[in-house]
Amino acid sequence: MNATGVIVEYNPFHNGHAFHLEQAKKISGAETIIAVMSGNFLQRGEPALVSKWKRAEMALRAGADIVFELPYQFAVQQADIFASGAVSILEAAGCSSLCFGSESGSMQSFHQTLSFLEEHNAAYQERVRVHLDAGFSYPKATSMAFLDLNPEGELVDLSKPNNILGFQYLKSARRQFSSMELFTVERKSAGYHDEQFASDSIASATSIRKALFSKNGEIECIRQYVPESTYQGLLQYKKEFGGFHQWEQYWPFLKFRLVHLQPEKLRDIYEMEEGLEHRFLSAAIQAESFQQFMEKIKTKRYTWTRLQRACVHILTNTEKTEMPNKPLKAEYLHLLGMSKNGRKYLNSHKSDLKLPLISRISSHAAHQLQLDIKASRVYAMGIDGARDRTLMQKEFNQPPIMVD
Amino acid sequence: MNATGVIVEYNPFHNGHAFHLEQAKKISGAETIIAVMSGNFLQRGEPALVSKWKRAEMALRAGADIVFELPYQFAVQQADIFASGAVSILEAAGCSSLCFGSESGSMQSFHQTLSFLEEHNAAYQERVRVHLDAGFSYPKATSMAFLDLNPEGELVDLSKPNNILGFQYLKSARRQFSSMELFTVERKSAGYHDEQFASDSIASATSIRKALFSKNGEIECIRQYVPESTYQGLLQYKKEFGGFHQWEQYWPFLKFRLVHLQPEKLRDIYEMEEGLEHRFLSAAIQAESFQQFMEKIKTKRYTWTRLQRACVHILTNTEKTEMPNKPLKAEYLHLLGMSKNGRKYLNSHKSDLKLPLISRISSHAAHQLQLDIKASRVYAMGIDGARDRTLMQKEFNQPPIMVD
Repeated sequence: MNATGVIVEYNPFHNGHAFHLEQAKKISGAETIIAVMSGNFLQRGEPALVSKWKRAEMALRAGADIVFELPYQFAVQQADIFASGAVSILEAAGCSSLCFGSESGSMQSFHQTLSFLEEHNAAYQERVRVHLDAGFSYPKATSMAFLDLNPEGELVDLSKPNNILGFQYLKSARRQFSSMELFTVERKSAGYHDEQFASDSIASATSIRKALFSKNGEIECIRQYVPESTYQGLLQYKKEFGGFHQWEQYWPFLKFRLVHLQPEKLRDIYEMEEGLEHRFLSAAIQAESFQQFMEKIKTKRYTWTRLQRACVHILTNTEKTEMPNKPLKAEYLHLLGMSKNGRKYLNSHKSDLKLPLISRISSHAAHQLQLDIKASRVYAMGIDGARDRTLMQKEFNQPPIMVD
Repeated sequence: MNATGVIVEYNPFHNGHAFHLEQAKKISGAETIIAVMSGNFLQRGEPALVSKWKRAEMALRAGADIVFELPYQFAVQQADIFASGAVSILEAAGCSSLCFGSESGSMQSFHQTLSFLEEHNAAYQERVRVHLDAGFSYPKATSMAFLDLNPEGELVDLSKPNNILGFQYLKSARRQFSSMELFTVERKSAGYHDEQFASDSIASATSIRKALFSKNGEIECIRQYVPESTYQGLLQYKKEFGGFHQWEQYWPFLKFRLVHLQPEKLRDIYEMEEGLEHRFLSAAIQAESFQQFMEKIKTKRYTWTRLQRACVHILTNTEKTEMPNKPLKAEYLHLLGMSKNGRKYLNSHKSDLKLPLISRISSHAAHQLQLDIKASRVYAMGIDGARDRTLMQKEFNQPPIMVD
């Protein structure tokens, strides 16, 4: 059995994702789709709308065969580290290919871009430095440096979010000597960050979340943009846990931590740079919401995403010593769920897996997974009152989701 | 000018406290009353009903002349450390006497008891050890040991809460070579922990708080048990901050800290004994309220009060290294407020004060006061929404309360 891998967040799974899965099968010729999916906190430094268990289930009902969790240490990270963890998981799971969505849609352009940047690395680094010195954020500086060297725009546009991630997947695969072949599918209609619905059936996850929260959780309005399984999954989640997760629910906890943490302890938190701590503290006392807090701490030097990630790390009390600060490989495959087909694949590939497969967290395995457990408990605190217990206990009690 | 000192929590100030202040003046012959009062968290490991500022104001309107804050490092402590800090502040403020309420009411009995215990120290320690080994809490073991040696009950009954504190004041004064003369006033009518109103005008603070919370904050029902100034003060506080402080408001924050703190970090918290951390963690996940949580962690070995104090320290993230674990003297006099008479006293005794007088926290003084500042910020988080900011900023902005 052949498998192709996808790297996803599914927040939530929508029609565009379903299209991507179809295309992935078609282009790669694989019978099995393995998704590596961020856990409860996402790359942009946000809590996921619904838990990783529900998101895994929605993915399995809509075409994925196996869902592994991308551990917290890779998920809540800048693109290169995120990519390194995800690629290593797909590689370890035995995927023969990796298929990603991008604005570019041309694998050849990605290869050319990588070669070009390798050749012009010195000039590129020099340009990056110039823009950093001018006070721009690192992502902005790299994107500007790239534009300086590629003014004609013949290469992949590395200011686009999916192109950036795709480029990092390629770099990680190269660096890890992966045997996977990479494919890219052009993203249809909706831009990654679009806040408006783009067509009658395709909308970005951002616009779907916006609609869910603006309508006060009335989810009927998004029904046309998601598979029926997502619609039903969101309904169930809302019924079981009273609503969806968003940053504002965690704001009292973030503020609580900020107002009484010693500045020197704040400095130990991953992605907290020297000097940010006093800014964070005084903003926390002033702000009346997470949105207001973010607006107060935002500067040209740091992207919104970067600052949100720092906030997640403060929330989960994740210190610099606990996180890789450079691209690394994952250490385990945490199985969130599988389809019948996925089970067949795992049965036949059991002995080929290059990392330990964890299908339920035992106290034995807990050490390795400490960050994921901690993140899940903090995530559960976003749920009102007593229902958080069910969610916290899932971390240990929940066997992999099975979907026929 | 002569001053007598009182050691108080005023949670809230009631008619029994007013009676005590009158008696203190009468017995001591002093013109000035200096109160040293716990800050926002109290000796029993609870948040005060209203902030230290409001409580200082209520005390000044009802007969106290000067109110100093008993720093967090002494206030949220077992009786002997609590007493050592309080006595050292009154001594440093130049009090010629100290007047405390007790169930006993006889200073001679206190002196006899201290002599008796000094003489029989070896036997006493032996009895304490026996009861500790049998699994009793430390306060219970000391009270039982005392009973073993004093079966006839001729000495002070050291199982009574005010007698215990009074006994510790005497010990601290002796140990610190204090020149203060000690007086005791027999407590009228209401037992310290009584939950029922005891008479038409005297009720314990416990019963008053119970009434305030059971009537959903309707404060009319307690009017007859408190001076009008307390009644008005409570009304104002409720209007300004939306209600009173109680443990349940802090429960989400305590739980948040417990569910994601590493056990080894929990062990660094003051008053957390080895072995308690796992008990606390699993209770936090199970419990739906602070009350439930406390019931789950309570054992014969630890008193309710002791466990509540540990919870306050977890909430404020106060580590073993930050707290004195034996009786010590205070390092500053933090002035919360004064009457006209109190101002006159301070003006004439300025040069006699044996500790630095802090009348407003500046960034200069902040280091010394770090625990108090931290505790005040955490305390403010018990207030709904944006109003906590006002309370947090008071710590730096509030000049001493002046009452004519």
